[in-house]
Amino acid sequence: MKSILDIKEKLIRTIGEKRFIHSIGVMETAVDLAKKYGVDEDKARMAGLLHDCAKYRDHLYLLKRVSDFDIILDDMMLQNKELIHGPLGAKVAEIEFGIKDKEILSSIYYHTIGKEDMSLLEKIIYIADFIEPGRTFQGVDFHREYAFKHLDGALRLSMDNTIKHLVDKGRLIHLNTIKARNYLISIEKSELDA
Amino acid sequence: MKSILDIKEKLIRTIGEKRFIHSIGVMETAVDLAKKYGVDEDKARMAGLLHDCAKYRDHLYLLKRVSDFDIILDDMMLQNKELIHGPLGAKVAEIEFGIKDKEILSSIYYHTIGKEDMSLLEKIIYIADFIEPGRTFQGVDFHREYAFKHLDGALRLSMDNTIKHLVDKGRLIHLNTIKARNYLISIEKSELDA
Repeated sequence: MKSILDIKEKLIRTIGEKRFIHSIGVMETAVDLAKKYGVDEDKARMAGLLHDCAKYRDHLYLLKRVSDFDIILDDMMLQNKELIHGPLGAKVAEIEFGIKDKEILSSIYYHTIGKEDMSLLEKIIYIADFIEPGRTFQGVDFHREYAFKHLDGALRLSMDNTIKHLVDKGRLIHLNTIKARNYLISIEKSELDA
Repeated sequence: MKSILDIKEKLIRTIGEKRFIHSIGVMETAVDLAKKYGVDEDKARMAGLLHDCAKYRDHLYLLKRVSDFDIILDDMMLQNKELIHGPLGAKVAEIEFGIKDKEILSSIYYHTIGKEDMSLLEKIIYIADFIEPGRTFQGVDFHREYAFKHLDGALRLSMDNTIKHLVDKGRLIHLNTIKARNYLISIEKSELDA
């Protein structure tokens, strides 16, 4: 693995200053959440820093890189620029940033769409991306506090927000996000029933 | 097939007066939509009348009947009382009300969860259930008008409403509904691109 300074230099050249600042915010929030929930802080730091390492602006360039790396994506991902950079980012982090750790790579892969039965690190990166200090949507302060009290509850609320936002914008909703949310609700129910 | 009077008598005994009145509303709305969109009015009438023929109140009784008929449902359907009565209703309509028409049965099956690439009759029953005269939710008048102008648009909006309602209530969302909505958006996009 390269030094974190090398990684930061390469990252800022790749994704630009604005997204780099967002990535630093996600990194710091992820480290705080990792401390709270007993997750490896170094992994949280690296996953937070690199989660958007393939968030290139140009849709055709995203598709070209997906093709270059032989990444298999479903139709909805290919149609939707916002969804490509997670899976592509996991590959870019591995090949171009030298990250070998599977947990970090998986957190990058799933940070936009989520999935059923996420690992703690995957949950932390998903939520950190939602509540990092640069986010200013209505209610963000509540989400920030809640994330440090109830990780699964905060994860579900952030998915609720995402789903309603996509509905309001008339955009496609990836089935993984629905499966992830349904899974969390089933877990809540089984905990209540227990 | 029994006479429509026999069917109405049997239906009111099965589901009670309140739900029977709702079913008459769906039936009448479905017939109006069928006229508008060139669909067989008799099929729309029967599908509208019988769409809730298995909407029994008791969850255990619903599950018992599913088991009696050897109906295969996914886990989410089995957990969710609201989702069972569509598939079960298709079977009850066939066996107990003597309906043989596959299009009618399919409209009953999918009237709650929807699916990709729905038939005109399936769309009509789904929307009629949403806008029948007994419905009083905010914005229902807009939905009623829109259904007679743009069937697919109205279908998508009713799914949008359903998804947001389920999110707000913390309830599971069936993947079919998301697939159905994504399908409609993809169709809209391909029409715009054409």
